[in-house]
Amino acid sequence: MVDIVNTPNFFGFIAAALTTVAFLPQVIKTIKTKSAEDVSIVMLIMFITGVLFWILYAIQTNSLPVLIANIITCILNTTILFLKLIYKKNEHFV
Amino acid sequence: MVDIVNTPNFFGFIAAALTTVAFLPQVIKTIKTKSAEDVSIVMLIMFITGVLFWILYAIQTNSLPVLIANIITCILNTTILFLKLIYKKNEHFV
Repeated sequence: MVDIVNTPNFFGFIAAALTTVAFLPQVIKTIKTKSAEDVSIVMLIMFITGVLFWILYAIQTNSLPVLIANIITCILNTTILFLKLIYKKNEHFV
Repeated sequence: MVDIVNTPNFFGFIAAALTTVAFLPQVIKTIKTKSAEDVSIVMLIMFITGVLFWILYAIQTNSLPVLIANIITCILNTTILFLKLIYKKNEHFV
């Protein structure tokens, strides 16, 4: 077991899993509170664009883990952006 | 120029830059509005933990770009978490 834990892939897998699934609590919170006013729309757009480039990168380098992680991240963040636009009240474009 | 654009590294660089700098608008918005109530604290903690694992991964694989991108991402997200705790009013732990 100790060998597996020390391999870079182990850290890479944990890192990819956490930085992908991390957006799920934000989706849940936004649905519960019906508000994402404090979430920056500029962040969401920049981040989703960046994730789309990670998907292009994954396709070009035939990297299935990067592809899967970023497709899930893209879906979760697009959901947050979509919910934010739906619940959008009198926000300022920041 | 066209050759450079088509290389995976170009996509990887753009992706890394965007998914790193994307958190800056969230830091600015949180400072401006003095509120991060809608930002999920569970997301921040999970994401920061994931980014720390990316840093471990980068050290083990001697990958400077991954290291630099994730140190900046870690600083920005820790700032958002810190600001959220400072401005925290009567939030629920979601």
